[in-house]
Amino acid sequence: MKHSKVRKETILLKESLDRIIASDIVSNVNIPNSNRAAMDGYAVIAEDTFGSSENNPVILEVVGKVRIGEIPSIIGGPRKAIGVATGSNIPKGTDAVVMIEYTKVEKNNLHIVKPVVPWQNVSKIGEDVNKRQVVVKKGIRTTPQDIGILAALGYKKVTVMKKPRVAAISTGDELIDPGEIQKDAKIYDINRHMTMASIIKMGGEPYDLGIVKDNYVDIEKRLKKAIAKADIVTISAGTSVGEKDIVPSVLDSLSGKNDLIHGVSLRPGYPTGLVVIDGKPIISLPGYPVSNAVAFRVFLRPLISYLLETEENIDYSVKAKLSRRVANIGGLRTFVRVRLFIDQDKWIAEPIMASGAGVISSLTGANALLIIPEDKEGIDEGDEVEVILLRPLKARKNG
Amino acid sequence: MKHSKVRKETILLKESLDRIIASDIVSNVNIPNSNRAAMDGYAVIAEDTFGSSENNPVILEVVGKVRIGEIPSIIGGPRKAIGVATGSNIPKGTDAVVMIEYTKVEKNNLHIVKPVVPWQNVSKIGEDVNKRQVVVKKGIRTTPQDIGILAALGYKKVTVMKKPRVAAISTGDELIDPGEIQKDAKIYDINRHMTMASIIKMGGEPYDLGIVKDNYVDIEKRLKKAIAKADIVTISAGTSVGEKDIVPSVLDSLSGKNDLIHGVSLRPGYPTGLVVIDGKPIISLPGYPVSNAVAFRVFLRPLISYLLETEENIDYSVKAKLSRRVANIGGLRTFVRVRLFIDQDKWIAEPIMASGAGVISSLTGANALLIIPEDKEGIDEGDEVEVILLRPLKARKNG
Repeated sequence: MKHSKVRKETILLKESLDRIIASDIVSNVNIPNSNRAAMDGYAVIAEDTFGSSENNPVILEVVGKVRIGEIPSIIGGPRKAIGVATGSNIPKGTDAVVMIEYTKVEKNNLHIVKPVVPWQNVSKIGEDVNKRQVVVKKGIRTTPQDIGILAALGYKKVTVMKKPRVAAISTGDELIDPGEIQKDAKIYDINRHMTMASIIKMGGEPYDLGIVKDNYVDIEKRLKKAIAKADIVTISAGTSVGEKDIVPSVLDSLSGKNDLIHGVSLRPGYPTGLVVIDGKPIISLPGYPVSNAVAFRVFLRPLISYLLETEENIDYSVKAKLSRRVANIGGLRTFVRVRLFIDQDKWIAEPIMASGAGVISSLTGANALLIIPEDKEGIDEGDEVEVILLRPLKARKNG
Repeated sequence: MKHSKVRKETILLKESLDRIIASDIVSNVNIPNSNRAAMDGYAVIAEDTFGSSENNPVILEVVGKVRIGEIPSIIGGPRKAIGVATGSNIPKGTDAVVMIEYTKVEKNNLHIVKPVVPWQNVSKIGEDVNKRQVVVKKGIRTTPQDIGILAALGYKKVTVMKKPRVAAISTGDELIDPGEIQKDAKIYDINRHMTMASIIKMGGEPYDLGIVKDNYVDIEKRLKKAIAKADIVTISAGTSVGEKDIVPSVLDSLSGKNDLIHGVSLRPGYPTGLVVIDGKPIISLPGYPVSNAVAFRVFLRPLISYLLETEENIDYSVKAKLSRRVANIGGLRTFVRVRLFIDQDKWIAEPIMASGAGVISSLTGANALLIIPEDKEGIDEGDEVEVILLRPLKARKNG
């Protein structure tokens, strides 16, 4: 594939949550950026405190105080103590902080009852983060902690991967969009709307190219527009696919090489088409919404991640006991929708058998997905399986 | 708390991903909205096919064809067959579909070699979703599937919970914002930026009220503004908290009842303050970023979910083996940052011991959180624990 385009952009830090970091970010500051008091107390020369005890306190002269956020104008020295608070810079000429708990002040005299060693109770310059250290890595999807860290380093802006633009087209004479009035035997398009939401979820930018009627010329025109303007193109058949399967022939012709792959070892999701035209991957997604969602997962998600240059998985999974055997057809990778529930503090995964018509009900009924690999004939009742969550589970405990 | 305000809004479906559904959504259509062919073939009266076989086919007259998306103008009847495709309406006067595989056409004569029973290969009206059935429930956070379902029902807009407006204030003379030039001993604010990102993550709308200097009048003024304009108020101390702890006294005075709770049984996160003023919850978050993040998790997240009227947990967790014992102080709920890694196909959780200064490094180093409840003295090395993920893990297998 061609990737000549600049695929990065610099955006405001506050708008960068859940974006993919475009390159390793190194600190250009030390944290702390100066030696700082780690405790409230007095900055001293450690050696001056040696031998001090409750019975035999060392007495130093308090010569001043450093506020948080200011560069100390005062300088320490032998037999001198300077008041500091947690986080304030310690003055030149001092090398340790005596905690306030081990001191008593009488007039300008500081009584110290416990010795400190050099650099005790001091956060040394660069101790937390060193200048030039990589703090946020390329390819991560930013969390609130990452935003906090980048703020700490002084970044107002951050360079992230551009959102890949993914075109979404639906085809079908019977399709209308939500908001349109349903007449004749028209049905509302599901696939394109689901696909566009999945594109957003993955970190892409959906490019809505609407519904096209089932005719060669219109489909070809819309596909050409998509290929010209998007990074990836998806085209879905309607939910009802009959004799009018024009998309594959248009794709084959546009590719100029008849190199369309049509039909993949996936269940559901077999009638998926894959081809690259002008360096742009085109995926024709099956008409049945459940197949459509599975094909998106298998083909679109890795493609979007590839363009985002991230290896991060946005899937979360749990281990569960399978409530009954599910069979697999050899050579196919099968995606079984399951309903997770708790029984005696264990997760149980109940396979949902959707009849052909149970499109919507099976989309709402499942909250997780079990993947059976190509080389397995099935999974037995009672086996432990790892299932991928399709939506967050309700909270089970405090925290 | 007062909740007189309208807390719902109606937005475009395509902008509703990850929003909280405001009330049960019922279907106002049947899906399918008419009896439809579930297979490509011929709509017939089932009874006409009884007794048919390879050797003794039934012969019916083909009287027409129904296209997908059209209301059949043709009507079926005894000894008649009408061509249909998967998804097309079946005509009046027919009650079953014979699959094309079991037919042969000669001129206008259809030879049927296998009988069908009434309603075979037909998706009956409302079979998938019935009018008035609840299809998407109040309180869920919308996934791409939910968007697909709502599209299928014809919804162009959807009513979701308004994002609670959560004010974020930081206090500290030493703080500056990213983008400002770092001079003197100023340090960049971490907490407010992390908090605002966490608010977005939870589904709230951050209301940035900036940095306030450590003085009573300014803090009071900023808090009053926050209370007037936000649903929830957070106020963070800077990373360095010394003698100047003005926020609690301002809050106590504003509440008028001295009912500020200050200090909670949380580690880290002890110096959290909680109070309700004018019906608005105010949380003063600790200065240390790690404590700040824990206090946000414990107090802000449930508050935001409460205003969103959702029970959904956005946490994902995995089970792991603890690499070494962690102790707990009785009566405190302790949050231990851990680093998860794979060893021999098992997750190991390695506790990260952060020294006082390791603020940033511990934020970046941890990818999960172990919660030790108040009544536990610790967790032993090798014990299985459930840890909450702080960021997605890298993909481990195909799927």
